Amino acid sequence: MPTIQPRVLKGFRDFLPDVEMARATLIRKLEQVFVLFGFVPIDTPVLEYADILLGKGGGETDKQVYRFRDHGERDVAMRYDLTVPFARFMAEHVEELYLPFRRYHIAKVWRGENTQRGRYREFMQCDFDIVGTDAASADADILLTAARAMEVLDVGDFFLRINHRALFNRFLAHIGAQDKSVEILRTVDKLEKIGPQATEEKLSGLVGSQRADDILSFIQKESSFEKTLDKMFSLCDHNDEEALAARSRLLDIMGCVAAAGAERRIVLDPSITRGLDYYTGMVVETSLAALPEIGSVCSGGRYDELASLYTERKLPGVGASIGLDRLMAALEALGIRIGSSTSTQILLINQPETSAARLHALAASLRSAGFACEVFPEPKKVLVQYTYAERKHIPLAVFANGSSGAFTMRILSRRENVEISDFPSLCEAVRRELHAPR
Amino acid sequence: MPTIQPRVLKGFRDFLPDVEMARATLIRKLEQVFVLFGFVPIDTPVLEYADILLGKGGGETDKQVYRFRDHGERDVAMRYDLTVPFARFMAEHVEELYLPFRRYHIAKVWRGENTQRGRYREFMQCDFDIVGTDAASADADILLTAARAMEVLDVGDFFLRINHRALFNRFLAHIGAQDKSVEILRTVDKLEKIGPQATEEKLSGLVGSQRADDILSFIQKESSFEKTLDKMFSLCDHNDEEALAARSRLLDIMGCVAAAGAERRIVLDPSITRGLDYYTGMVVETSLAALPEIGSVCSGGRYDELASLYTERKLPGVGASIGLDRLMAALEALGIRIGSSTSTQILLINQPETSAARLHALAASLRSAGFACEVFPEPKKVLVQYTYAERKHIPLAVFANGSSGAFTMRILSRRENVEISDFPSLCEAVRRELHAPR
Repeated sequence: MPTIQPRVLKGFRDFLPDVEMARATLIRKLEQVFVLFGFVPIDTPVLEYADILLGKGGGETDKQVYRFRDHGERDVAMRYDLTVPFARFMAEHVEELYLPFRRYHIAKVWRGENTQRGRYREFMQCDFDIVGTDAASADADILLTAARAMEVLDVGDFFLRINHRALFNRFLAHIGAQDKSVEILRTVDKLEKIGPQATEEKLSGLVGSQRADDILSFIQKESSFEKTLDKMFSLCDHNDEEALAARSRLLDIMGCVAAAGAERRIVLDPSITRGLDYYTGMVVETSLAALPEIGSVCSGGRYDELASLYTERKLPGVGASIGLDRLMAALEALGIRIGSSTSTQILLINQPETSAARLHALAASLRSAGFACEVFPEPKKVLVQYTYAERKHIPLAVFANGSSGAFTMRILSRRENVEISDFPSLCEAVRRELHAPR
Repeated sequence: MPTIQPRVLKGFRDFLPDVEMARATLIRKLEQVFVLFGFVPIDTPVLEYADILLGKGGGETDKQVYRFRDHGERDVAMRYDLTVPFARFMAEHVEELYLPFRRYHIAKVWRGENTQRGRYREFMQCDFDIVGTDAASADADILLTAARAMEVLDVGDFFLRINHRALFNRFLAHIGAQDKSVEILRTVDKLEKIGPQATEEKLSGLVGSQRADDILSFIQKESSFEKTLDKMFSLCDHNDEEALAARSRLLDIMGCVAAAGAERRIVLDPSITRGLDYYTGMVVETSLAALPEIGSVCSGGRYDELASLYTERKLPGVGASIGLDRLMAALEALGIRIGSSTSTQILLINQPETSAARLHALAASLRSAGFACEVFPEPKKVLVQYTYAERKHIPLAVFANGSSGAFTMRILSRRENVEISDFPSLCEAVRRELHAPR
């Protein structure tokens, strides 16, 4: 007598095979890109000491963190991102590693967020970073890796919108608005959400209409990378060392990206600020041309110190994070079926006149030939077995015809039967059918 | 000024790249086996309602479970195995799925166990089950999948030690010891740990010395599957329907396994009982010939009802669980290096006279040719870059020689430089070197 209602917590999800296979395929593709660019995987615990994850203080994020006392009365928490554990990891292991260290980490994180905005409380993050170098080459690597990832995932046209935090900050200093920089960054960051008019009004309220106009002019994209950069720099103090360095850095990054053939993927967009994040150099967001409204699917930037909470060692770095859930939603919205090659190719039909042992022998031979196959475990009605194959997207069914050594192969989508005389011919027929265009 | 000591909780681990890559490779190999046998992946939440995971009551396991109140004052817990969430999953989704349902699930679970026995509080489980059928064919599939997994992982010789719960139970009934069956199962299960003498003493204390002798005789392996089975059956009531059915089931399973060519992997071992687990039919444990002392690396069995806590629907099934951590420890103990093809193949050496852009252009070309490569981000001393490559197990370094279009390829293990005139020759040389036996 069942007594417990089966259910999952709000904001949590089961992944049924079709979705889980799509997710695994997507992750596999991303991993291949990371490997191609020299990134190596790491993993860290899901549970950590709360002070490690949250610092000594508290903040907005903290309220969302799953935090509790464990059996030993330790104050512990579930990770809410992959950046803080990575900072702790680097501080703890830097001597065992090598620098620059390029890592990727694809794993679940947990936030007790309001689920009404279509957010989940358990979701996947996919981070990749290069730590221990301040070189423009590393910035370029992050952009190139992100671009390759988007290409491999076949999301259609996309843009990496980049900017440099220092250029914006030096511009604000030049117009005498640096004391309001936090509020200005926050406002500019919401430009796409609230529109130019509301942005202008908010900015005017903060720094007066003249400077609001300057800011709006600064964050306006021009017709090319160079023209936008010239415009941005022209609004700064031309002798400002920091502004000069930021301009030069953007040109160096673009030089590397262009040499690698990815120039057309990059847009210099002065309105990209990444809000209040801890970035200090280049910042990046990624927009899909077909779905601008879903926001950035890959965001990141350069930071001065990754792990200053845990070590005196300076660890500058650059990295980005791919929003896997958002990306999967995007692919679904675009009608892109993420190919999966990971399901059964052949169902061996179980009939009363064929022994299970005979089917297992056949299955073993087919597997040796490289085919994914399964024996239907009971001699149920053939139609029941066909329906099973259909539900599981199995393309082919095979009947072992008595002890004759002959087979019937059924192409389930076409309801077509093919008579086959021996095992080598069966393998050939299966191979031909699996490779045929659908 | 760093203020927080970087550290992980006791019983939890960081995975540095070499170990994480080995783990990923191992998992990848297992996944390929599962796919070959028709299993599909699922995933479930890490956090669930505590009553789902623990039932209404409490027990020995419960004390080890990470359980707490979330932000909404819900009584929640982190999963401590993959079986209970799977039972809930099946009860909730059976109408959306198809039966028999073959799933695998490779994921972390958490238990606040005593870490002194070398146990971890966060570890990976790898479960595979076939639910919705009572057929011997499915039992055989679990054994065949387990055997293939061990073969693919290259753990050397191994044995799947199987038994049938009902045969043991009917034997106990026949000698009039069924009322002590729980204690007897528990004692027999510890045979290998405590030795035959202590087992005999414990059994004698439980049921007297005559029946203790009978039990010890029953659980003794004979020289072949058939002889062991005959001996076991001869100690039961020959007209006992259940014992007859169990014998016939074992023969059917063995028929399928033998037909698939895996007969030599199977040992009928009447001492295998899986203690107090909920199994009702076949049970299995897997021993490595070279490391019997580490215990079973893959265990499971048949159960009558997977999800009776959550649904009235009867869901019989059979499954097993691979102990990934134990297996990784075994591979290490056996000196087997889990091959990993997932790290950088070429480091592009950064020199002051070569622009970063030139190196990024070369990297892009090498990646298009399918090579995993990375640009060292700064023109540090060449020796520093060599050391980096060595630490990261990168086999080759390439210098772009000025603007000549020529290259030098260095084979780092042999400290040997090869001069190369153009890009196609470089690709050829790299390919040859990467495929050369080490």
